[in-house]
This record gives sequence, structure tokens and C-alpha cells, in this order.
Amino acid sequence: MKQIMEMINDPQRVITKSWIESSYLSDGLKLEHGQADLLVLPKTTQEVAKIMHYANQNGISVTPRGAGSNLVGSTIPNGGIILDLSLMNNIIELDKETFTVTVQSGVFLSDLQQYVEQHHLFYPPDPGEKKSTIGGNVSTNAGGMRAVKYGVTRDYVQALEVVLADGTILNIGSKNIKDNTGLSLKHLFIGSEGTLGVITQCTLKLIAKPSIIETMIVGFTSIEQAIANITKVLQTLTPTALEFVEQKVAKWGENYSGFEFPLPDSQAYLIIMLDGNDRNAIDKQREQLLTTLGNVPYVIPKTPAEAAQIWAIRGSLVRAVEAVTQQDPIDIVVPINRIADFVNFTKQLEIESGVRMLAFGHAGDGNVHLCILRDELDEAQWAIKLQQVHDALYQKCHELKGLPSAEHGIGTAKVKYFNAAIPLENRLMMQKIKQSFDPNNILNNQVYIKGNHH
Amino acid sequence: MKQIMEMINDPQRVITKSWIESSYLSDGLKLEHGQADLLVLPKTTQEVAKIMHYANQNGISVTPRGAGSNLVGSTIPNGGIILDLSLMNNIIELDKETFTVTVQSGVFLSDLQQYVEQHHLFYPPDPGEKKSTIGGNVSTNAGGMRAVKYGVTRDYVQALEVVLADGTILNIGSKNIKDNTGLSLKHLFIGSEGTLGVITQCTLKLIAKPSIIETMIVGFTSIEQAIANITKVLQTLTPTALEFVEQKVAKWGENYSGFEFPLPDSQAYLIIMLDGNDRNAIDKQREQLLTTLGNVPYVIPKTPAEAAQIWAIRGSLVRAVEAVTQQDPIDIVVPINRIADFVNFTKQLEIESGVRMLAFGHAGDGNVHLCILRDELDEAQWAIKLQQVHDALYQKCHELKGLPSAEHGIGTAKVKYFNAAIPLENRLMMQKIKQSFDPNNILNNQVYIKGNHH
Repeated sequence: MKQIMEMINDPQRVITKSWIESSYLSDGLKLEHGQADLLVLPKTTQEVAKIMHYANQNGISVTPRGAGSNLVGSTIPNGGIILDLSLMNNIIELDKETFTVTVQSGVFLSDLQQYVEQHHLFYPPDPGEKKSTIGGNVSTNAGGMRAVKYGVTRDYVQALEVVLADGTILNIGSKNIKDNTGLSLKHLFIGSEGTLGVITQCTLKLIAKPSIIETMIVGFTSIEQAIANITKVLQTLTPTALEFVEQKVAKWGENYSGFEFPLPDSQAYLIIMLDGNDRNAIDKQREQLLTTLGNVPYVIPKTPAEAAQIWAIRGSLVRAVEAVTQQDPIDIVVPINRIADFVNFTKQLEIESGVRMLAFGHAGDGNVHLCILRDELDEAQWAIKLQQVHDALYQKCHELKGLPSAEHGIGTAKVKYFNAAIPLENRLMMQKIKQSFDPNNILNNQVYIKGNHH
Repeated sequence: MKQIMEMINDPQRVITKSWIESSYLSDGLKLEHGQADLLVLPKTTQEVAKIMHYANQNGISVTPRGAGSNLVGSTIPNGGIILDLSLMNNIIELDKETFTVTVQSGVFLSDLQQYVEQHHLFYPPDPGEKKSTIGGNVSTNAGGMRAVKYGVTRDYVQALEVVLADGTILNIGSKNIKDNTGLSLKHLFIGSEGTLGVITQCTLKLIAKPSIIETMIVGFTSIEQAIANITKVLQTLTPTALEFVEQKVAKWGENYSGFEFPLPDSQAYLIIMLDGNDRNAIDKQREQLLTTLGNVPYVIPKTPAEAAQIWAIRGSLVRAVEAVTQQDPIDIVVPINRIADFVNFTKQLEIESGVRMLAFGHAGDGNVHLCILRDELDEAQWAIKLQQVHDALYQKCHELKGLPSAEHGIGTAKVKYFNAAIPLENRLMMQKIKQSFDPNNILNNQVYIKGNHH
């Protein structure tokens, strides 16, 4: 690895095995740890290219990472080099005429959002973890709450700069809105979880910032009643966000955040966001919505601060749970007409298994987030119970024609259920693509797509 | 080929060389013709799989086609089998709960649009050629006029059934809205121009049909003035469609269609479509638009029939030209802030080259359609002039960071400019993908991506 040290020639950016902090050996859950020989923090695409070229020639595994906030083990290295892109965090260009921004892949989502909003522009994808990097967002095709109206990260990627396993620098995509010029390499990299190349630069599509954002919280007497209203809402209008939270789940967030939902007597909530630029149009949408929902209690926060509190509770749920007990995050997606079936199944499974589960999530797109709580189980019991619960949940998901991952990815954590969900012939084609891009199988070779050699 | 006849066992669906009508040997332009040994019209996916399996084992070229309306030579066969999917034209399922429709790939776009609209749903992509098939639309990631607001075909493909070169049937995608479960094979097939597999079935996303659609035509004193207003419009709102037409171009459509644009004294027009469900909101958008445009003459058609006439003129432009002279269609896309530069360049080139060119198109997304007119040039002169004009246009497009194809594809017609526009390393990756999917290079092997063997 001496060659790498010479290439970078900055001891603060090349850290050897015994000096690598343990958080670099894990993912966002910080439960499992791998090992690595070298941690490198490149500052330029050329440095990334040199490192990859060397690693490829010497068959050294490389695990790229942004903020390391992923939840499925993708950044748990199995030896070799950890490539930390967090120093590549420059905003390169804001092009107001084409509504695009170009950033290095290590820029935090929160920094990007803030930067473009200062210029009255708007980056619609809004994954829960704001201290994640744009490169990571692209790698997992991150979704988030505004996906109902605005779509996911995929829908906002105009162009990428990617370093392939052998060090080749690819520029794919452009600022052009339409493109039917050849196979879409761009879409292949989006959601590829670092298996096909290292994303070093992203050009993202922006929109004009909506001038009005309105939140509404609606109370129901049961989670079933809340979920039954999801389809009605979606048939009436396209909300910006549509989240469901059960009261017992909300309590965790309330305790953790120190804020409180209005309508404390409700057993379940739908939180709805509307946005736009036309006051009358939004008022009308709200009226339509209330007509659709019938006689239900609701609150419209009077100030942005009040609305922010509601979203803060929603946003804190995972952290609230983790402050109390270890949890395993599930990121299942089902067709939107199957959410009720899936949530009801989790209720039943909770009783049968004796394991607590908190369901909440992106009701508007069928993406159910589920925290499976370890509580007082010891290591061995937890492993057995988790396996049983996983098997049951993913089986149900499969029956409902859902998929194991909406936005977290497969990584190492969901390989079993990925293999069960995706037909063999599809996985074989993914393998062949992986082999084309990374014939020595050095890039993120711990995760679900493996090349030939290892 | 006897084996194929036995497989299908229906003489009306297996047509031998000398009986193949010449239109099957060409594309939508009907200028160049290839040759083929057999024309097969499968009725089921299983039949397609059997044919592909046989062709692959025997190294026989296969050229799939829908309606054959493509404009870049993709359906001009070079021997072997023509696989015509037009008999696979069943609508399989309308799923109102998940807002999806599933169709065989041979269904006409017009039939799909009509069918879903009868059920108060809406398929937003609207490519100009309505008698194209959905499979063909997916193969070229077809765009059309409503792309400004709603996006292109890619944005509406939920799932595909595809038969690979070796006869393997792949089911990719699902009705789930979010999906980060493995590499996106779906996006690889979209826009792949029949090179990676035969699309046999498509599940498409629908939206609620907007209840109000309003057209507005605005007149300008010059094409420059019209184009200068495009960015202003896009900064004010997102129209459903935003088309520009020069008056001298409009005349062709008026003569051909028998209808007339209002504002006959204008030298150029922007045609704007707004849609939605809220009358007040649309009125407000129109007011904002007129404020933005300043003191310009405009007409809002009073009836849907009047609006339809305006769109009929716009829709007839290519056919109007073709009724008078042979034309070569250009489908360049440039970043939206470069449309004026590109259109001005075509004006200059028209003078320099002495070749007439008509520019019009999708102003809202930078997609300039250009008809290059042959007029009285003989075969040899036309070949030389066309080459010169092409070279100049694609060079300018490249300078402006545009791309050779927005929605028609590359096919055989644009290979030279594809090679100039797309870096070698990107093309090599496309080749490798092609080889993974079609190792014997039998599928549409006349077009731009070639495998190893031929």
C-alpha cells in the first residue's frame, strides 16, 4: 500500500489499519464491523482514478463511502481500501438557466438543500438522513418523504462523473432534458450501491422553490382507519408528502423530540404536506381533502415553526427508538393498495412473535418503514427471533408483490430476501453487468452482486 | 427456417422472403430498404421465446418491430427474421388501485390513450406518432409534446416482460412505486432500440385525467423573439406543452391540414398548453404567463374543437413537408438555454448551404425538430449536401453540449454522430452490456451497438 501513500502524499488522508476509527468499519447502524488495511480520503477525481487503477491491478477490495449512513451494510469493508469521499464536498456550479446544480459527491444533502434554496431553487428529494452525501443518495436511489409528488433521487440525476474499477473516468448524462442517445449508463449507476464504480460528481435537476408549503395532521380512531384513507387521499390529489404514524409510535418521537402532536386522543395520524405557488389552489386542495376524509379531526399548524415540530417528531422516530433499544430497520415497499394488508400483518406478527414492531412511513408510495425492537432479548434469542420475523415479513411482502427495498438498498443485510424476491435470470444479468464493469470484483464485493473472481 | 414454420404452424403468420411486403423492409421514412428471409408475427410471449431460442442457436439475425414508424433505420432488417409484434396487441389489465395498465407491446399508443381515458385515467407521454406501438415507444424512450410537464416514456414504465436473445423470458420491475432492489435492468431496456431483448409486455403508470386542458397561442414578430420568451415562460410556470413554430413552417401545416392558425400577421408562434383540475389555478397561471410575456397578441381558443385545430396543424408539420418533398428528420436536443443559439445557427446554415430547413419543436425541453428538405436536388447532390449539413448541425449541437437524439434514437442513421458525441469509454461499456445480453449479436445488429461476433 506504499504506492497509495506516495500517490496521495498527505499522511492525514491516508490512514493505516491500526489507526482507522471503528465508525469507518461500519454503516449507519454501527452494529457490525468489518476490517480494512487502509482508509484513503481523496480530494480529486484524478486521485480516485489513480487509487482505483492501483487497486484493480493488485486485486485489492475497495469500499467507497460518503457519510457512512447507509443501513444495509454497504459500507462495512471486507479488507482492502476504504475510499472516503467526504472531502470531495465542493459545490461546483449552479446553472440557473438550465435549472441544474453540479456538486462533488461528498456534499451533504442538507448543504445542497440549503445552498439551492438560498437561490430560490429547490432540490425535491428529501431522504430522512440529511447528513448523508449526494453520492450516497445516488448510490441508493434515496427516496424520502416528498417522493409522492416529486419522485426519488433517480428522477433528479442529470449527469454523473464516475470512476470505474480500472480507474477509467466516465462522464455520463448531460444537462439536456431529453436523451435517447444510447443505452442509459446513468440509470445503471443510480441505485447500484457502489458496485459498478465510484461516483465522484453529480449534476442534479432543480425546480423553482414552491412559495407555499402547508402541513395538515389528521387524527383517526385506529391505524386501520388511517390506512383506509390513504387511497382516498391519493385519488383526490397528489400531496407533497403523505405519512402515516400510529399513536403508540408517535409517543416515541414525542418523548425524544420534546414536541407533541396535536389531537392527542387519536390512535393514528396521517400527516399531509401540500405545496405550490397559488394560495387559492392550495386552499381548494385542502377543502377537497377534507370533503374526501369526511368528519375527522384535523389541525393545520398556524406557523412554520408549529409545522416544523410535527415533522421533527416524524423525523425523529428512528433515533427515538434507537435511544431506547437496538432496532432492525425494514424498508419494504408494497403496491399502494396493499399497505393495509401489510401493516395488519405486522400487528398479527407482533402478537405471535412477541417482538415489538413499529410501523410508520411513506403512505403515499407504499413504502413501509418498520423498526423491529430488540428490547431485552439476548444476542442468541435476538438472532433467532429476528430471523423468524424477517422470514415472515419478507414472505408476506413477496405475497403482496412488494419488494425488499424501497430506498435503503440490499447491501449485505438483505441478500437472502433479494435472492428470494428477484428471479434467478434477472440476478444473472445483474452479475454479468457487474462483471463487465468490475471484472476483478474489487468494488464493494461484500454486497449482493458479486463478480466472477471472488 | 422450416423449424420456425413448424413452431408457429400458421401460414398467415410466417411469411417467406419473396412474399414479404416492402414496407416491412423499411422504417417510418420508407426510403431505405433491407432484406429478410422470414417475417414472423408471434401471438404470445412463448412464441417469441421459441423463435429467439432458435435464432440464437443458429446465429440468425432478428429485427423486432412494432408499427415500424421509427425514423432512424432501426427496423430495416439485414437478413434473417423480422419479428413483427403487432398481433400482440391485447390490453391485459387496468389496475385502478395502483394506477397502472398492463398491455402487450404491440398495442397502439392511440388505443392505449383512448382506453385509459375512457376510465378517467391518463397516460401522459404523447409522442407525435399515435399509430406507434407501446413497445416501440419504450424502445426509443419516446417523448412528445407533454414531456415538459409530465416527462417521457421512461418515467411511466413500471414493469416490462422481455425476451432475451437466447429465449429467456425476463420479468423486470413491478407495480411498486419505489424500488431500490438491485440494478435497474428496466432502465437499461428503456431506450435500448431493440438491441438487448424483445419487449413483449409493459406495465405503465397512469395518473388521474386532468379535467381542464387549455391551449393558448401567442404571436411574435420574429422567431428570435419567440425563442427569447421560452425561458421566461419556463421560469414562470411549468406548462403541459410549449411548442415553437415559425410562420413559414406553420404555412406548410395550414396548407396540409386545411386549418389556420389565428394571428396570421405573426412571424412566429409559441403554442402553450396548461392543464389541471382547478379552474381558478389555471386562470391565474394564464394571467401570470401574460404578465411575463408582456404586450403580445394571443388567442385562447373558445372550444376544444378550435384548440384541436391548432394542435392538428402542429401535428401535421412532418407529413405536410413529406407531401411536397423528401425530408431528413433531425431530432437534436440542446440545453434549454441554447435553443436560440441552435435555431439561429440553422438559419445561417440555410443561407450558406442553400438547403431549406424547417425548425420547430418542443421548446420546453430543448428538443428541436428540424426537417431538411431535399427539394429539387438529384440523388448525388442530395447525398453530398445532406452530409455537409449534417456535419455542421451535429458539430454545432456538440459545441452547445447538446445530444444527437432526444427521442428518435440512433439506429443506423446517426451512428457517425453518436460516435462523435459519446466518449469512447462510454461506448465500450455499452458494447460490453450488449455482449452480456446478446453474445451472438443477433438482435437488431444493424444498429449502433454491436456485439463481438459480427
